[in-house]
Amino acid sequence: MRNVTKDNITDVFMDYMSKEADPRMHEVMGSLVKHLHDFARETNLTHDEWRTGIAFLEGCAAIETEDRHEFVLASDVLGLSSLVDMLHSSVDATSSSVLGPFHISGAPPLAVGGDMKRHFGGPILVAEGTIKDTDGNPISGAQLDIWQTAPNGLYASQDDDQDRFSFHGLMTVGADGRYAFSTVKPVEYTVPTDGPVGDILRACGRHPWRPSHLHYIVTAPGYNSLVTEIFPSDDPYLDQDTVFGVRDDLVMKYVEKPAVEFPDGMEISGQVNEPFLYVEFDVMLSTADTLKS
Amino acid sequence: MRNVTKDNITDVFMDYMSKEADPRMHEVMGSLVKHLHDFARETNLTHDEWRTGIAFLEGCAAIETEDRHEFVLASDVLGLSSLVDMLHSSVDATSSSVLGPFHISGAPPLAVGGDMKRHFGGPILVAEGTIKDTDGNPISGAQLDIWQTAPNGLYASQDDDQDRFSFHGLMTVGADGRYAFSTVKPVEYTVPTDGPVGDILRACGRHPWRPSHLHYIVTAPGYNSLVTEIFPSDDPYLDQDTVFGVRDDLVMKYVEKPAVEFPDGMEISGQVNEPFLYVEFDVMLSTADTLKS
Repeated sequence: MRNVTKDNITDVFMDYMSKEADPRMHEVMGSLVKHLHDFARETNLTHDEWRTGIAFLEGCAAIETEDRHEFVLASDVLGLSSLVDMLHSSVDATSSSVLGPFHISGAPPLAVGGDMKRHFGGPILVAEGTIKDTDGNPISGAQLDIWQTAPNGLYASQDDDQDRFSFHGLMTVGADGRYAFSTVKPVEYTVPTDGPVGDILRACGRHPWRPSHLHYIVTAPGYNSLVTEIFPSDDPYLDQDTVFGVRDDLVMKYVEKPAVEFPDGMEISGQVNEPFLYVEFDVMLSTADTLKS
Repeated sequence: MRNVTKDNITDVFMDYMSKEADPRMHEVMGSLVKHLHDFARETNLTHDEWRTGIAFLEGCAAIETEDRHEFVLASDVLGLSSLVDMLHSSVDATSSSVLGPFHISGAPPLAVGGDMKRHFGGPILVAEGTIKDTDGNPISGAQLDIWQTAPNGLYASQDDDQDRFSFHGLMTVGADGRYAFSTVKPVEYTVPTDGPVGDILRACGRHPWRPSHLHYIVTAPGYNSLVTEIFPSDDPYLDQDTVFGVRDDLVMKYVEKPAVEFPDGMEISGQVNEPFLYVEFDVMLSTADTLKS
């Protein structure tokens, strides 16, 4: 089209796409560009604002490393990551929640009943439950990839003072589907605000806090993988998680128990002489044919 | 909001923005996120597609340098750059067109009638015209920042074999508003396809070609600056410019003239013994109060 105008440019873009291009590419790219153009038209986006947007992307590029995923963080605080999770969560399974930018692969094995607390101080938490199918049958051999913050609010990947895989563990459950581990209660923390995403939060007048949570990735052959989080019901940030990760069924009561009730068969560093927190959380996985459309 | 759902997450995002945040930030960020969420919902965007999007941004980040502006190029081929130009072009002035990713600041002065061709071969082109206000009066002292491709289709910033400012010049016009220079006719060229933007073009079944053009940035105190391009009317890519830059009033006939008609007062390397191309193109600048809403 020779005479491109602000009113026909979206149609011109659609005409440029080849009829032979993949139909799903047509659909996704067409919708993306239609919304991008409508955004610019509706806001009458100025050159200065366009330059601010380009500078935001270039600022993310400048800070991006193997351990610092600023584009993922941007997707998280804009709600896109959570929305994609919710679009593809299973009807009857446990809700999914954001992966976040801090997951690292290759965590060391952690036995059922194992200890992630090690030498760290802070309130002891015991988490246990069963990995089940949606009929309530245990899933033998399911794998649980667990990670969380240290008591200083940092993930191992953010903190040179921690071992590479501190507060990370990979647990394989037995025929009863049961998982269990002891750890330190995770703490509330702020997402990183020293990059361009921090500028967005400040400009919007938003805080950077997330409620405390345990991260799980649960996988089993023949089932849909689940990325999720577990939140304590008394957390002050439950109603304002800056990455939109909280779902009703992921909010659990952490019960305080006396030292004498510490469960048998748990491997923990040192003797438990203090009250501890306990949460029971079963995880239900769906099979591939039960995804929401 | 504790129970975020795919249907309420956009409202939750809006509620997170502080009432004290800048109203324009509210408007722009709110519209951006609404369109981003609608895009994901309408396409039922999958995790794999989300990862492809993140990988695209990270791929742009990996290739971004001072001379390679992949995010700008992405905006160009998606039509966003041209759309922002058109939203803010002036009613009675010359149309604007894309700046593109190859402009570099600090070009050396070029006298009126100066020579940008130098030792390069190829068809000689003489371009001249008058910088005017919208009433047709010449604008004394207006400045013209000119840049174009070398005959090999590369801008100086892309090509280590060229001087830093080859085919770049900064011209200041006199009281008559007249500009003039000789050069080599620019050639059609492809935008860079060795990065993630090339992947988009290939996936969409689109070619990467732009029609041949001269780039101008025209500035004068008291007038709106104009970023524009001039295209020859016989170019094969006029109807399919991959960055959507062509406007009717920027398409000009390049007239072939015999050597004997080469204009007086032009400084050109060597004697002109061959026919040359000639284009006359007046540039009209608007004043600040005449911008389209």
